[in-house]
Order: sequence, then structure tokens, then C-alpha cells
Amino acid sequence: MHSIQHLIKIALEEDIGSGDITTENLIADNLKGIGEVVAKEPLVIAGLDITRQVFEQLDTEISFKPNFKDGDFIEKDKIVLKVEGKLRVLLLGERTALNFLQRLSGIATHVRSYMNSIANKNVRLVDTRKTTPGWRVLEKYAVRVGGARNHRMGLYDGVLIKDNHIAVCGGIKNAMECIKDKLSHLVKIEVEVSDLDGVKQALEAGADVIMLDNMNIDRIKKAIELINGKSVVEISGGVTINSLNQLADTGADIISSGALTHSARCVDISMRIRSNNNNK
Amino acid sequence: MHSIQHLIKIALEEDIGSGDITTENLIADNLKGIGEVVAKEPLVIAGLDITRQVFEQLDTEISFKPNFKDGDFIEKDKIVLKVEGKLRVLLLGERTALNFLQRLSGIATHVRSYMNSIANKNVRLVDTRKTTPGWRVLEKYAVRVGGARNHRMGLYDGVLIKDNHIAVCGGIKNAMECIKDKLSHLVKIEVEVSDLDGVKQALEAGADVIMLDNMNIDRIKKAIELINGKSVVEISGGVTINSLNQLADTGADIISSGALTHSARCVDISMRIRSNNNNK
Amino acid sequence: MHSIQHLIKIALEEDIGSGDITTENLIADNLKGIGEVVAKEPLVIAGLDITRQVFEQLDTEISFKPNFKDGDFIEKDKIVLKVEGKLRVLLLGERTALNFLQRLSGIATHVRSYMNSIANKNVRLVDTRKTTPGWRVLEKYAVRVGGARNHRMGLYDGVLIKDNHIAVCGGIKNAMECIKDKLSHLVKIEVEVSDLDGVKQALEAGADVIMLDNMNIDRIKKAIELINGKSVVEISGGVTINSLNQLADTGADIISSGALTHSARCVDISMRIRSNNNNK
Amino acid sequence: MHSIQHLIKIALEEDIGSGDITTENLIADNLKGIGEVVAKEPLVIAGLDITRQVFEQLDTEISFKPNFKDGDFIEKDKIVLKVEGKLRVLLLGERTALNFLQRLSGIATHVRSYMNSIANKNVRLVDTRKTTPGWRVLEKYAVRVGGARNHRMGLYDGVLIKDNHIAVCGGIKNAMECIKDKLSHLVKIEVEVSDLDGVKQALEAGADVIMLDNMNIDRIKKAIELINGKSVVEISGGVTINSLNQLADTGADIISSGALTHSARCVDISMRIRSNNNNK
Amino acid sequence: MHSIQHLIKIALEEDIGSGDITTENLIADNLKGIGEVVAKEPLVIAGLDITRQVFEQLDTEISFKPNFKDGDFIEKDKIVLKVEGKLRVLLLGERTALNFLQRLSGIATHVRSYMNSIANKNVRLVDTRKTTPGWRVLEKYAVRVGGARNHRMGLYDGVLIKDNHIAVCGGIKNAMECIKDKLSHLVKIEVEVSDLDGVKQALEAGADVIMLDNMNIDRIKKAIELINGKSVVEISGGVTINSLNQLADTGADIISSGALTHSARCVDISMRIRSNNNNK
Amino acid sequence: MHSIQHLIKIALEEDIGSGDITTENLIADNLKGIGEVVAKEPLVIAGLDITRQVFEQLDTEISFKPNFKDGDFIEKDKIVLKVEGKLRVLLLGERTALNFLQRLSGIATHVRSYMNSIANKNVRLVDTRKTTPGWRVLEKYAVRVGGARNHRMGLYDGVLIKDNHIAVCGGIKNAMECIKDKLSHLVKIEVEVSDLDGVKQALEAGADVIMLDNMNIDRIKKAIELINGKSVVEISGGVTINSLNQLADTGADIISSGALTHSARCVDISMRIRSNNNNK
Repeated sequence: MHSIQHLIKIALEEDIGSGDITTENLIADNLKGIGEVVAKEPLVIAGLDITRQVFEQLDTEISFKPNFKDGDFIEKDKIVLKVEGKLRVLLLGERTALNFLQRLSGIATHVRSYMNSIANKNVRLVDTRKTTPGWRVLEKYAVRVGGARNHRMGLYDGVLIKDNHIAVCGGIKNAMECIKDKLSHLVKIEVEVSDLDGVKQALEAGADVIMLDNMNIDRIKKAIELINGKSVVEISGGVTINSLNQLADTGADIISSGALTHSARCVDISMRIRSNNNNK
Repeated sequence: MHSIQHLIKIALEEDIGSGDITTENLIADNLKGIGEVVAKEPLVIAGLDITRQVFEQLDTEISFKPNFKDGDFIEKDKIVLKVEGKLRVLLLGERTALNFLQRLSGIATHVRSYMNSIANKNVRLVDTRKTTPGWRVLEKYAVRVGGARNHRMGLYDGVLIKDNHIAVCGGIKNAMECIKDKLSHLVKIEVEVSDLDGVKQALEAGADVIMLDNMNIDRIKKAIELINGKSVVEISGGVTINSLNQLADTGADIISSGALTHSARCVDISMRIRSNNNNK
Repeated sequence: MHSIQHLIKIALEEDIGSGDITTENLIADNLKGIGEVVAKEPLVIAGLDITRQVFEQLDTEISFKPNFKDGDFIEKDKIVLKVEGKLRVLLLGERTALNFLQRLSGIATHVRSYMNSIANKNVRLVDTRKTTPGWRVLEKYAVRVGGARNHRMGLYDGVLIKDNHIAVCGGIKNAMECIKDKLSHLVKIEVEVSDLDGVKQALEAGADVIMLDNMNIDRIKKAIELINGKSVVEISGGVTINSLNQLADTGADIISSGALTHSARCVDISMRIRSNNNNK
Repeated sequence: MHSIQHLIKIALEEDIGSGDITTENLIADNLKGIGEVVAKEPLVIAGLDITRQVFEQLDTEISFKPNFKDGDFIEKDKIVLKVEGKLRVLLLGERTALNFLQRLSGIATHVRSYMNSIANKNVRLVDTRKTTPGWRVLEKYAVRVGGARNHRMGLYDGVLIKDNHIAVCGGIKNAMECIKDKLSHLVKIEVEVSDLDGVKQALEAGADVIMLDNMNIDRIKKAIELINGKSVVEISGGVTINSLNQLADTGADIISSGALTHSARCVDISMRIRSNNNNK
Repeated sequence: MHSIQHLIKIALEEDIGSGDITTENLIADNLKGIGEVVAKEPLVIAGLDITRQVFEQLDTEISFKPNFKDGDFIEKDKIVLKVEGKLRVLLLGERTALNFLQRLSGIATHVRSYMNSIANKNVRLVDTRKTTPGWRVLEKYAVRVGGARNHRMGLYDGVLIKDNHIAVCGGIKNAMECIKDKLSHLVKIEVEVSDLDGVKQALEAGADVIMLDNMNIDRIKKAIELINGKSVVEISGGVTINSLNQLADTGADIISSGALTHSARCVDISMRIRSNNNNK
Repeated sequence: MHSIQHLIKIALEEDIGSGDITTENLIADNLKGIGEVVAKEPLVIAGLDITRQVFEQLDTEISFKPNFKDGDFIEKDKIVLKVEGKLRVLLLGERTALNFLQRLSGIATHVRSYMNSIANKNVRLVDTRKTTPGWRVLEKYAVRVGGARNHRMGLYDGVLIKDNHIAVCGGIKNAMECIKDKLSHLVKIEVEVSDLDGVKQALEAGADVIMLDNMNIDRIKKAIELINGKSVVEISGGVTINSLNQLADTGADIISSGALTHSARCVDISMRIRSNNNNK
């Protein structure tokens, strides 16, 4: 929560810097206005509260009235929210607020389309750590708003033993033995494997989750047969909206996709500002 | 420069938090390794220095050897750079470094494709303020690396009089008169107009730059005729790589496009890490 | 705006540190008081809002009532403003608030005297970057309050090509050609020259503004003749209130003076505090 | 020490912001240069180490060679110091470094002139808390460099009981009794009085230091007679370089003067930069 | 005050990090609740205002109702305070608030027991700089709440000449002469000595306070005889609650004890939270 | 890692503030010295690297030579480490460095004694979130150095469903169903129960870990029988070194104890400083 406020502060500073030389010179401080944020394309909205905070950091007196809540699908040309207050504040915050809202809604909309393509499938779609630096908490939130789930938040809240760890430790078994006793008892261990031999070793070593990394469909199916429910199965690597359906049918528990965050584009959202009166 | 170091710090903190519980428990502190960053698709590289800084914030002893410089086109599977040092540091910094590099190179690559489509045209392509909050300086840098130019950095270093300013001031003429005398003599004034009447008023008021906002090709051509070189002309609104060529042929001086930054996707870059030895 | 709040925070911390050991031990927390800020000499007031923020950072419940607005001339012994609230807060904030107000009003008063000496002259007086480190935005604001205008805010919002740039690039023409295409189209280019040859080169290269640095009156007049309206002319170097009149008559567009900020002294402002009651 | 580094950081950020658009576009990154800082008038130098730190924050590779040490008197046109390194870094840091050096040396020079006027007098000249917000530690350092001494650094390291404290507590005696037992045993108590009755009360209450505030010479003499060595005597209020001598002869122990800091002007110091070679 | 808010911010961040994954997933945002903080053992309460600030940093709408004030003795099972507001906020802040309150009350309770053991003795018990890093101001506050007094806050607000200083300066006399003239006139000088010879030298040099470091009772008595009221006497080193009484009878003015802060344990305080209703 | 550097910075600032007025006035800047850190009682050392960082933040040129590594048992009077460099830096950093080292080693020593009392028992001893605000990462590190393990680091990296969560959700079953699907697949769920009925419900709901809160030995044994290995069992509440042995024999998997951190006292460690030469 503190970290989001901090990012908003940075964002306002980089845009406003030593001052908005247009607005400060043209708009009297006492003028009031109203801003209507409009969806310029169909979208799933995410980031309403961040939008509110952008304006509140500039002026605590702003009034913020959303017509929707995060996760709602909004049709083109609908008014997403209204914000009322000093005209200067609306103009100062407009671009930054939209930049947040367009990006987060972009991710939520993107994720929703993935989710729709696997509706009714018994598989969990999760994100990765491929997020915009500085935006981890926000983007993972937008993923949840879109309907998917999160993988670990960072390196601190889940164990994922990768090839480098395995190589240095001299095999999966050694790595598992080495780490098991040191972890909090609330943390599970996931092991990344790239072939069936790895799958067998991870199973024997007692991995809670086995990540099948960059395997083709055939090999995935064989791996899942081998695992046979003794461990949670995650499929990872090169997941696209096209391959998603087929992967979902393999019987894997989890599919992870970096594309959920790193390939989402901003959706088009704009703001119409009206002043309540003129400079005197 | 300070602000980039600060963003890197935030990015490392959000990924590492209270510690990398996998690596700290599996990799001895004294092990060394080498990481090779590889282009997994053709791309224009941008952000090499930021990548270096990510690792240096973790450990000043790291050795960083780029094979290219920002702006270079790199073919698929080429090694972009090598980084050598403590294995722990490579594993700690890997994801954050790649997240920076993939995004910035994504923008540079995207911008380069736009530039290629207007090669030999006598028009300047510029970005907008539609950047990722927190990333303004970095993304505008990546735009330059890709070959396009920057519009103003923020609200502080250029005047852009928009419809709201005009409405409050009671017309373009009033607005121009009101602001002219207050500005630094090093700043130009741009006025946004959406019809030919606006163009005429802006011309008469002595605007340095006139932005034709969301006009169709016909109207743009008429506006440019009307302006006839007495003011710099910028075209803005809904610019895509498809419309770019046609817009470039109108004779406008400048085309601005938010898509340069907000619609670029991350390019695929990965890191292969090898340890020089094993845990003892 | 964030940066001003940050400077106020630093200022309060350096004065209060681990606590006001006099007041905390002598004044009960619940006592209320009123403070009257008095002009001890004639002055132009600047910084009222900063003064308010100083007290509000200590206690949001403070009531702040200014009798004037920034830019007003105030006679000796007039009450500038009243501030009401906890007596402890008044005593804690008094010195810091006055230190801000005395300095900013000092600059505004100083600048006003310069402006009065060139009243009716058709020339613009501007400041420089010779400001107190940490105070750039505040001091440039006080300059505007005093009636003069600002040169660029920093290195980021205007181009000023100086002798070092010219020497490295191999002449004014080369420098101009090198930079022109890289800049935002909203930024003008100023070139600093120290002789008539420089003036000619800058003219030919198409400088938007030519700064005549440290020239005597005769040479300035010749330069202005030569330029003949084809470029904006700025006079710089050793400008004092005594030379101002003569310089203003040369026909230059702009006179810049570091003395506006670096040679202003603080004006005398004090605060009378009355408690509404006594310790019980 | 941390706080000075922080002020330097703020100062560089406010000057450089999103980048030095002149230098970054004109000076190649690999060019080296040398900067000579020159005294343009006779002065007492103060702030050499801060100057070094300004450049080192930009680039740790800079080489810094002072010809003098803080407190030295320097004649006009002498070279104060040389700084060598990347030409870009010299140009980036020049103005900020000089702004620090000019101000601190201005105070040291100003204080030195006060000290010279009371050479051989057995009195201690001290500063006040009337310092530039954000600069307390630096300006108090410059006062010491100039030869005077410091009063308390802030509200935290010394007790000064003023009229408001006395009024609320119901007299000097009550105030002294109230606070004595609560303080650290390393802190002395100073009481501000404005008439002889106050002097008597402060004496009886056992004040360590008595501040005679805004008294005329006659009254000061009577007060000092009355005190007769039983308490340290400080004279305060409206002290100028003209009144200093007469005040010093009253036999007071200490004279405090806000003018030491708030009325010092910046001394003239400039920097000549030479590049070692040209852009290729 | 700023520093305490900053420590609270750090504390909340380290506990909450990227979010309370239990509460955010189980407790609806609109649910309200009430928390009762209960003393689980007899204690002296300290830190009520910090506790309030913890919750207010999370949500300014919280209502905070203490039943006691800092310094009050509270019996087992009494309700210390109530806090009302969003259930989520209560659960988020509970542990951090208690961690502050338990530690500060632990110190106050510990100090109170020391004070009780020397009730009626004419000696002042003070703390040292042996405080938890980051907690100096808070722990010294808790010491005062417990009834003891503070030694200097840090290295900046009092002079304590120790063996290293003496050795480097070539004796106590030299050290005193060297420093006397440089200090603010509001600061006293304390000299640490470990034998009677040191006592004599400190006396002759005019030390305001003499610290008898790690002397036995006999030597302390001889030293105090020798000093005979000409200097304030502080006893230091290995002070425990058992030795306190005997030390107090030596006639020393001050006894300092690091144990007041570094050996206090947290007292047991818990929080009962009740929700006003259920998830719908 | 950043957070520890930040705490060190705060700690140095609160101790040094505006400067060490004793040392700066008595010890020449060029004097060198050596400091020997000595164990004044038997202890388990923890925090060597933090100690190094304290001195390095003051001066990167310091030389730091530990004779032990974290976790080593050290006998009374042994030299723990040596630090060499500027005498001023040794004196500036001494207290802060020791304050860190005494506290962290205090925890490690305390934890080691707990561990020794259950040597050979097949149970895991873990800490809680009852840590000093600001010190979470450091104190949890000291716990591991002492030989015990960590529970979750904060609210972000493990789920612990407590009575409030259960009450609001309408029972354990509902709570489990509500949260299961929303969590990362790397996080386990622990449920806190206080009676056998709770145990049954938690078992049925599929809790990964069941925390038996404040149960007596008999009830604990019955609970463990009931659970019969189908879930991990944690005992919590009022664990002391005396009850530890008996609790360990119940067959529980985990015993958690807030006393590991909140009831550890600082161990006695001091520093002997010798200067290599004298002031000249």
C-alpha cells in the first residue's frame, strides 16, 4: 500500500516536475471542473482505486465517483467514472491517472480473454515474475481482476528450484534435501524440470509442485501420467492464447504465462474535462 | 540519473523483498558464475546501461561486457552481453534485469519499425506523455534509441494549450496573450486545434506550433495549406503504423503517436547462467 | 509541489531533531495560542503558502489567516498573517516558517526594486540558475512574485550553447547543426557569444536567442544593430541595479541577472506569539 | 553527513531533472576535461569538501585537487581548486558546485569581516537559528570556518527559555523549576530577558546563561553589573557590524547575530572548463 | 516526530509487504470491528500515541480510545485501549501496534522498578546510548515515562570526553583546553575517569561533570569526597538493580545504566478483536 | 538488503545527528586507529556483516577483520573482530555497531540455549512475528543463526487463519473454501484452533498445518492423536524454555515461541580502541 502511493508520487513528479507551465499560467486556482473518464473500446476495468489516489495526492478535496468496480466489463463509450474538483488538479492529474488506468485495464482485459478461452476447463492460469519493474504488486492485482491467479509474488514467498540450483547442488535430490529443513513450514517447493528423467527425480525427492518447462504436448502428457496426482503439475514456457486450450486439456493443474503481463497492450481510455466557469 | 537508480532499487526490492529463499538456501555465497543474455527474436537493443546498473546495485564487483551498443539491431540467438560475478548475484538480478531490457528493447524495436515505414520521408515522428508511470525518462530514451524523437518530457518543459485551456480563457487569442509574457523565452507555444477555424485563430495568435488533433487527411491537407509554413505543424490522434505513410505525405512537420510507447510489447530476451563450480 | 513539501520536512527535522527540549518541558500539550507575523520593514511578501505548509506539516489542525497575498507590498509594522492552534506547534514552527518567509520575501522585495528601476522600459528582466541549492523552484517563484521572469528552470527545459560546447563541436555552426534535429520541437536554442564574430555566426546558424555575455555597452549596441530583430537578444554578465537602466536602453529583449537571487538579503519579519491561557 | 549528501542529491536533481539537453546532445560521453575554479574577488573559502562531493555524486572517477583548505583567505583571480574528469560531468556539476561554494564562502567571508572588527576583544561572536532552511549544518559550519562560534544547532541541543515560555509558566522562577529536573545534566539553561527585572529573576532562578534581548548599551551595562559574573551573558538583537565594537566593550561574554548567516551575500566564484580534445 | 512516523512506516512495510494474503482473501473490505488491547501482566504503559499512529497510517478513519495515559500503572487483565474501525485495518495493524507497545511498556515497567528501589534517594537515574538502533527517541521517551531521566540523546547534544579522546590529546587538561572554546555555550563538558588521579585532573581542568567509570564503592566514595561538590558526579558501569541502592547512598548526583534499555524485556499485551458482523 | 542498509543509516543518523561534537573537536581527521571488539561474556555471535556495514557507511576505506563467523560460540574475553581505519570513524561508529551486535548476538545466544534444551528431539523450534519493529529481517536471521527456524516472515508469505477470520467466514470449512482457490499454489494454509472440535474441523477442511493454540499437554496429546499425521502440527502459546522439553515430547512437528525474539536480552560486548598516534 505504501509502495503504490510511492509509485504514484514518482509518476506525478516525473510528469509535473517544476510545474505545469501551461495550466499554471492559464487556469485560475479557484476554478472548478468535472472530468469524465470514458472507455474508448470495450474493456475490463482495473485500477479505479489507483486513479482516485492519483488525484487525491494532488488535492485531498477531490470528489471521485466510479460507475463501475474493478473487474467489470465496460462497453465502448460508457463513462467509467467522474472526478470533480479544481480544474487545475484535473488537468495536472489527467495524464498520469489515465496512464495507470489504461495499463492495468489493458492487463485485466488481456487476461480476461485468456480466461474466456479456457472457461469450463479445470485448470488454473497464473502469471509469472515477468512484470514491469516497479509495478509487481499492481500488475499481479490486475491479473487477478482479469480472473487468473498469481504465481509467487517474488523470490521471497515461494521456492522454485531451477536448473542452475540443481546443477550447483548436484541433482534434484541433493537440492531438495539441502533446502527442505531450512524453509518455513508454510512454503511449498516447486522444481523445474525439462524432461521425463527430471520428472522422476522430482517425484522421488518429494517436490510439492513440478514445473514442466518448455515441453511439447506429448511429453507433457507422459509426464502427467507419470506424476499421477502425486504432485501438483505446472506447465510453463511459450504459452499463448492459441496453445492454451490444448494445454488445458492435458490434465495439468496449472498453466503459467508471462504473456499475461508482458504482452498486454494499454486499452484506450480518455478523459473529457469541463470547467464549471471561466477565468475572471 | 538519480531517478533511474531509484526505479532500479524499487524493482529489486519488490522482487527480492525479505530474501531469495531458494538461492540463499542452495547456492553458497562464494560461488562464481557467468550469465549470457541472448536475443530470442530479432530486436533493436535498448537499456544496456540499466541492465549493468541492476547488477551493480546488488554487487559493485560484477563484470559487465556488452557485445552491442544501444540502438544496434541484433539477430535471433545472438549473445547480447555477458555478466560475470557471484552466482547468487546473477540469480538475484536476472529477472529484474531482463524485465528492464525486454521492455526498453521492445519499445526501441517497435519504434524502429515505424521509422522504417517512413524512411526517406521528410517528417519527424515523436512520442507523447502516454508512458508507463515511473518510466518516463527511460521510455523516452528508448524512443530515441529506436530512431524517433521526443515531444516534451512533461508538463514542465513545453507549453501545449488544449481545448480546456482555450475554453476557460475565452478563445485561443486570449489564451496566447495571457501566457506569452509569463514564459521563459526558451519555450515555444503549441496550440491544439480540431478544425480549420481553430487553425486560423492559432495562426493569428502567433502559435509556434499548431497541433492538428484527430483530423482526417483532407482536413489536414487544407490546414497545412492554410498555415503555409508560418507555423510548425504537428499531426496527432489515432496514428498507427498503417496510417503513418499517408500522414507523412501531407507535408506535416511532425507526427506524434502514443502507440510508440503504450502499444509496444516486450521482446523476448533470456539469460543462460553457468556456474563455474559446485557447492562444496 | 512534492519537492517543496520535502524541503519543509528537511527544514523542520534539522531544527527540531530529537525534540524541542525547552517547549516540550514547559508548555502543556493542550494549550492554544495565536501567532502574529509582523513586517519589521517595508517589503514585498512571498511565500505565504509555504508558511502555511510549515505549520500544517506539524499539525493539520492549525488555522492560517493571511492578511495579504504574495506580491503585495506591506508597510512596516503591519500584520502579515495570523496563525492559530496549539501553542507548542506555534513555537516549534516559528523559526522555520520565518526563515522561509524572510528569504523568499527578501528575493521578491529585491527583485521589485530592480523592476521599479526599469518601469516603463520595454525589456524583460530574468533570473539565472544561480539559486540556493535545494531552493530552485521556490526562489524562481519569488522572482516572479517580485515581478521579473524566469530563465530556464534547469538544464532540462532549455538549450543554452556555451563556449565549451562550441569549442568541442568546432564552432557555433557545427554545434547548431548537431543539436537541432535532436531536440523537442517545443524548445528554443540560445547561443552564448562574447564578441561580434560570435554574434554573426549565431545569426547565420539560426539561433533563436543570442546571449551577449559580458559585453560593454558599445559592443552590445553594435551587436543589437547587427542582429536587427532576427533573433531574440539577451544581455548577461555583471548586471547590477546601477547598470540596469543603461542596459535596458540598448534595445535588448532580455536582461538576465544572477544578483536577483544570489544577492538578495532576508527581510526582517518576526512573530509575536500569545498563549490563550496558562499551564494548569 | 548523510544530510549533506541528501541536500546535494536534491540540488543536482532540481538542476538536471530529466537531463541536460544541451550537453547530452553536444558532448560525447568519452571526452575528458579540466575545470579551474577561480576566486573573482577576495574571499574566505568554505565548502571545498561539499564541492568535491557534488562532482563525486555524478561520477566517482572524478579527480579533485584543492589548492587551499577551508578557512584560507584567497586573493582575487587565484585558482581555488581543479577538478578533472569527463567533460560532461564537469558541465553537469558546475553550476550546482559553484552555488554551494559561493554561498558558503560568502558566509565565511562575511563572518571573517565581523571577526576582524572585534579582533583582540574578549568576546565570543555566535550565530543564531536564522539559517536557510535545509542548510543548518552547512551554514553553521561556514560560520565556524569564518572564525565565529555556534549557538545551539536547533531546538534539541540547548534550552532557551523565551517570553512565551515564561508567560505560560507564570514567571522565570516557575519555568526554571519546572524544567530543571527534566533535562539531561549536560545541557545548560539560557533565559531571555528584556529588562533589568528579568535579569534579577533569571539570576535568582539560577540561569546558566542570561540573554539580554534588544537592550540599549546603557541597560546592557547595568545588567552586566548586576549579573557580576554569576551567569554567562549573551547580547542579542539587532547586532550589526557597526554596533559590534561597542557591544564587545560592554563586557558581555557572547554576542549573537542572525546577520552572520541571513545577511551574507554570495561571493563571486567561477569555473573555467577546458576540454582535452574534440568530438570525433 | 517525522522519524517516528518513518519507523512506523518501515514496520508496517516489513510485516505487510505485498499484502496480508489471509485477511485480504477472507475479510470483506466493508466489515467493521473493535479491538481491545489488554494488559496480560501488571505493567507501566508507554507508547499509546505510537499505537494510535500505527493504525492511523493504515486508515485515518480509525477511532482510538485509550483508558489510560502513558506512565500509568495498569493491573493484569485491564483494558488498555480500544480501537474501532475496519476489521481489515485492525488485523493488519494488530501485530505491529502490539510490538511497539510491548517493547516501550517493557522499558517503562523495567525503569519503574529501578526507580521504586531508589525512591526517596536524592540521586538521578539516567539511561545511556545503548538503545535499539532506530529506536533512540522512542526508548529514551519510555525511560522518561518510567520515571528516570535521559543522558545525552546522541553524539550531537553533549560532550563526553572518554579515554580515547584523552589519550590522543595528551591528557585531560589538554583535551579540555582544546575543546572548551569551540563548543556552544549551552553545552556542558563531562569527562570520564577511571581512577582518582583522573578525578583530580578533571577537577583541575574544570569539568562540569565527572563520570566515575567502573569504580568500586570505596573508590567512588573517595572520589566524591575529593570532588566535594565542585563538579557534578556521575557513576557509570555495571549498574544493576541490586547495586543501585548502595550506589545511590554514595552521594553521587547521577547514576547511569545501560540496562534500563538494553535489558528490558517486552511485557505481555494482547489484542482481542471482535467483528461487528459477518461477510455477506 | 536495501532495508538493512536503510536501518543502519537511520541508526547512524539518530546517534550522530548534526555531528559528534566531542570527537570532531578533539581528534584530528588524519589520525588512524584500531578497534578490538571483545566478548564480555560467553555468547553466540550474530551480526558480523551488519557491524562491517555500519563502519563502511561511515567510510568505505575501513578494514574489517572478523575472527569468527556468525553462529560461532565465543568464550568470554575473546576478541570477536578487529576494525582498522580513521580514529574518528571508529569513535563515530562504535556505539551503533555494538548496539546492533549486542542485540543480534543476544537473540542468537538465547535461541541456542533453547535449542540445546531440545537437542536430539525430533521437533522444529520456530519464531513468530513478535519482533522489534524495523528489525524483522535481522531478528529472524539471528534466530536462524541460533539454530532455530523461521515461521512466516510477515503477512505476505504464508496463510494463518485465526479465530477472527473463522468467525467472520462462519467456520473453518467456509474459510478454507473461500481462500483455497485464491492463493498462489506455493503457499500452505495453517489454521489456528483452540479445542478438539476445531482440530476436527481443520482436518476435514484439509488444513496443511494445524496450530494448537494455548492448549495444555493433555489436550495437545489428544489433538495429535486425532490428527494422526494427516496434517503438520504446530504448538503455540506461552512456550518457555522450561515447558519446551515436555512440549517436544508430545510428538508435535513444530513449536513456535515469541520469546525467542521478544525476551532475549542484549549480550555484553565492548570495543577497545587504540589510536596509532597523537594529535600534532
